[in-house]
Amino acid sequence: MSRTQALRQAITSGKLFTAMSAHNPLSAKLAEEAGFGAIWGSGFELSASHAVPDANILSAGTHLDMMRAIASAVAIPLIADIDTGFGNAVNVSYVVPQYEAAGASAVVMEDKTFPKDTSLRADGRQELVRTEEFQGKIAAAAAARRDKDFVVIARTEALIAGLGQAEALQRALAYEEAGADAILIHSKQTTPAEVLAFIEAWPGKVPLVLVPTAYPELTEADIQQLGKVGLVIYGNHAIRAAVGAMRAVFARIRAEGGIRGVDKELPTVKEIIRLQGDEHMRGIEAAYLR
Amino acid sequence: MSRTQALRQAITSGKLFTAMSAHNPLSAKLAEEAGFGAIWGSGFELSASHAVPDANILSAGTHLDMMRAIASAVAIPLIADIDTGFGNAVNVSYVVPQYEAAGASAVVMEDKTFPKDTSLRADGRQELVRTEEFQGKIAAAAAARRDKDFVVIARTEALIAGLGQAEALQRALAYEEAGADAILIHSKQTTPAEVLAFIEAWPGKVPLVLVPTAYPELTEADIQQLGKVGLVIYGNHAIRAAVGAMRAVFARIRAEGGIRGVDKELPTVKEIIRLQGDEHMRGIEAAYLR
Amino acid sequence: MSRTQALRQAITSGKLFTAMSAHNPLSAKLAEEAGFGAIWGSGFELSASHAVPDANILSAGTHLDMMRAIASAVAIPLIADIDTGFGNAVNVSYVVPQYEAAGASAVVMEDKTFPKDTSLRADGRQELVRTEEFQGKIAAAAAARRDKDFVVIARTEALIAGLGQAEALQRALAYEEAGADAILIHSKQTTPAEVLAFIEAWPGKVPLVLVPTAYPELTEADIQQLGKVGLVIYGNHAIRAAVGAMRAVFARIRAEGGIRGVDKELPTVKEIIRLQGDEHMRGIEAAYLR
Amino acid sequence: MSRTQALRQAITSGKLFTAMSAHNPLSAKLAEEAGFGAIWGSGFELSASHAVPDANILSAGTHLDMMRAIASAVAIPLIADIDTGFGNAVNVSYVVPQYEAAGASAVVMEDKTFPKDTSLRADGRQELVRTEEFQGKIAAAAAARRDKDFVVIARTEALIAGLGQAEALQRALAYEEAGADAILIHSKQTTPAEVLAFIEAWPGKVPLVLVPTAYPELTEADIQQLGKVGLVIYGNHAIRAAVGAMRAVFARIRAEGGIRGVDKELPTVKEIIRLQGDEHMRGIEAAYLR
Repeated sequence: MSRTQALRQAITSGKLFTAMSAHNPLSAKLAEEAGFGAIWGSGFELSASHAVPDANILSAGTHLDMMRAIASAVAIPLIADIDTGFGNAVNVSYVVPQYEAAGASAVVMEDKTFPKDTSLRADGRQELVRTEEFQGKIAAAAAARRDKDFVVIARTEALIAGLGQAEALQRALAYEEAGADAILIHSKQTTPAEVLAFIEAWPGKVPLVLVPTAYPELTEADIQQLGKVGLVIYGNHAIRAAVGAMRAVFARIRAEGGIRGVDKELPTVKEIIRLQGDEHMRGIEAAYLR
Repeated sequence: MSRTQALRQAITSGKLFTAMSAHNPLSAKLAEEAGFGAIWGSGFELSASHAVPDANILSAGTHLDMMRAIASAVAIPLIADIDTGFGNAVNVSYVVPQYEAAGASAVVMEDKTFPKDTSLRADGRQELVRTEEFQGKIAAAAAARRDKDFVVIARTEALIAGLGQAEALQRALAYEEAGADAILIHSKQTTPAEVLAFIEAWPGKVPLVLVPTAYPELTEADIQQLGKVGLVIYGNHAIRAAVGAMRAVFARIRAEGGIRGVDKELPTVKEIIRLQGDEHMRGIEAAYLR
Repeated sequence: MSRTQALRQAITSGKLFTAMSAHNPLSAKLAEEAGFGAIWGSGFELSASHAVPDANILSAGTHLDMMRAIASAVAIPLIADIDTGFGNAVNVSYVVPQYEAAGASAVVMEDKTFPKDTSLRADGRQELVRTEEFQGKIAAAAAARRDKDFVVIARTEALIAGLGQAEALQRALAYEEAGADAILIHSKQTTPAEVLAFIEAWPGKVPLVLVPTAYPELTEADIQQLGKVGLVIYGNHAIRAAVGAMRAVFARIRAEGGIRGVDKELPTVKEIIRLQGDEHMRGIEAAYLR
Repeated sequence: MSRTQALRQAITSGKLFTAMSAHNPLSAKLAEEAGFGAIWGSGFELSASHAVPDANILSAGTHLDMMRAIASAVAIPLIADIDTGFGNAVNVSYVVPQYEAAGASAVVMEDKTFPKDTSLRADGRQELVRTEEFQGKIAAAAAARRDKDFVVIARTEALIAGLGQAEALQRALAYEEAGADAILIHSKQTTPAEVLAFIEAWPGKVPLVLVPTAYPELTEADIQQLGKVGLVIYGNHAIRAAVGAMRAVFARIRAEGGIRGVDKELPTVKEIIRLQGDEHMRGIEAAYLR
């Protein structure tokens, strides 16, 4: 069974599946070792790692290159965040096979206008495209995939744009009808009430996807009980962890005028070398360096 | 004064200058905010972030792209790690202007054979090219730069290769003669004795550069006192800090079945958005989105 | 005088300046050798060379990489075609310094909506953004450049969109007011009448730019006489020449079952090697390969 | 049957198969339309199109990006020229799966030292690695492929390096023994005598591959008769055709002060738009732009 088949099966299995965000192959590998089921190829994290806003500042090529590198570093499925699809349905049609060839098993596409603004930014621009237009983009994505198991996830920002539950549900159903394999319902309320109401009201057949960034109180056990959610994505915890630690270590090195203090508290260089696949390389050397 | 001029001046000023490794623009920005004088565009960190060995597995283009992204994210100088120069003196001659155009203010080139193996790996391959050959590469790098202030740093791995102090000193002098602006003397002894002996014996005019990865006990104050060292590079602390933190956070999320526990201990999303340059983007929006 | 200064001076000198399109560094080098004044870093040609439509299918990164390669292969100025600026004024603001760093001396930005469709396509989509919105993009481009001599050229597609002379003139003036250094007036009429009428009516101070693809009868001497045009761009002749020749040569090889016939009619391998800079490489080898 | 299977079958079928060099997807598409059986993803042509020597000046990433673009533009198999494999057997092991993922159906690897010099250059450096070392590289390539049908072609430069027939045959047999699926025997003699002698003496089981650049007199019918050759590669005719035509067209435009004369002799813009896949895009627009 390919990892794409595995992903499709996992999100419809009735048992909650989890994905952790990654901004490079190393964070993906650590997520895999920790036991997450999939990698979230996050545009927010990649933008953050480049110190630019998550507003289509990075080129699609930069994101694709990173997806390719991540997919070759881990064995678990990769879910690629393609934002608004880099333009209209034509762009979507050209870009989906590239993500598939890069090794992704799924894409998540959102119904905002291009260029997008991050959903998490206070006072950001949160305009949506017409429902019919986005249906066209979903259908284009589904038609463009070469592997029929490749998963197309439609993300509606209707709640984030303040359009209310009725609009959110109507859009989600329309996206399912257009061919979406799952619906990501996004909210930036600091409690899960809004999302829970949506889930309860959801009449569709495809599984839902949650990104509980703004409402961290909701646990996997809570979500599992709801029954309609197939996947939970942790959207920014890799980069936030990295930032906190680098900042603290850098500050101590400056304060202490050296690495004497921090060095012994950090993972060893040997451990990093292990993560780089040293054992695999030693195998190649032994077999083929003559 | 350009940052290239600033770097050249700093390493010859008599006051010790510091550089922190970075594997992406965000880690570079955090290093700048912490007060380091320059960024070390580390091949080891970049390889580690891609989960591949530091053995010329990544393409030169991947490293160049990252240097370009880092140089545009920070205002302090960037010192690019070009390993062995990606081939012979011809390759060096073609690649140095590309690093300069990418925004680097310096390159460090080492005297190992291509493809290199990381200096830090137990039982790695540590063969050196002939002294004359490396002199040619140094001279080619110096001749190829367009800005005469661009700094060419020669790194000798003679001690790491087990060739002894005499060979290390002879090579370092030969590299200075060929046009190197500074000499990086590398050691993987776990005490600084070997490096201290080299420094004491160093008869050259150009400043020395240290990377105290293996001998963390040596502080900046200790190094400053030695008088001949212009720059200390912390070669892998950004990635080690990031790995430690991501691993711990990922493990807790799996153990706790959610982000409830970790979320409040991490830097906020708002803080990440600040690091992405939100204020700059708001300024552009206010001025030009009509 | 830098090539950016030279370009700015040339298009305002009163003497007509010429640019030839290029889709790779080699076509640029041939254009330079032929005596063109500048290179047109054409999105149409690059898209064509990738066998995809000129409709923002290629990533901005792919275009930037090519601009970087072209700028380092020639000494004459490079005018980069940035289509609609890859999004809104924010995207423009982030992308212009990247084109500048890539070695371009100018950008041409057009007032169509993103994703664009090629102006030359029958029945293509030709919608324009609001005048004020495009003014914001022009102003953002001008403010984002680091070298004050970097040339920002506004291209209006008003005639192509069928909006008439009055709208075209009004937009062109508004773009000049917003900071455009020149106005590219585009037409796909097969005679120059429409463009000539625009030129005659043009009341602005900045020079005009023509791309006489659709109306090839207009010569440089004709244009020079008009007095208000600073630059003529030949927009697709490199790729058209290449296509015609490759097709003919390929057909003959298939028909003749070998290269016996075509080989002696083609430029020699030695000539290609000369264009690759063999003499420069020989110089490096002689000086630095030891 | 995949195109990789088709390639493997074609070169062992007893009927001569042909490949035309390409330096971009458009030249590949023209070669496909002309009836060639496969595309040669030539390092020489790609380097030439970038106006740099064919001496590992371009990054492996640049070549891979182009292979990816070519493989998605044509339906026929792509044979990627990986020069010396970008380093030692370790590098080969990492790079082969990347070429496979990029859509190539085969790689050709040559037994020169890294960095290579083009075989076609007068007085170039033509040193070979030890036979055992290259056997390790071949074995590493074969072991690293994921699709067992992926074709690994070993190219010996023994004749070009002046080492004689005995050495060439010994190396070719050793490479076959190490797992090569075919042997490319290269010569720069201006008559085919040297290559014909090799073919006649070849005692191996795998098919031979010829690149009759230097001896264009040899036709496909001649080669077919020899019986042991499975593939003939035309190594540089796309770029040479393009150069000749662009040079002539550019010169005429300069001489005539405009495009009046050349325009009607070139392929039309409409024809270029067809090659860009306009029909495919129209289909997407009709189906999905709502």
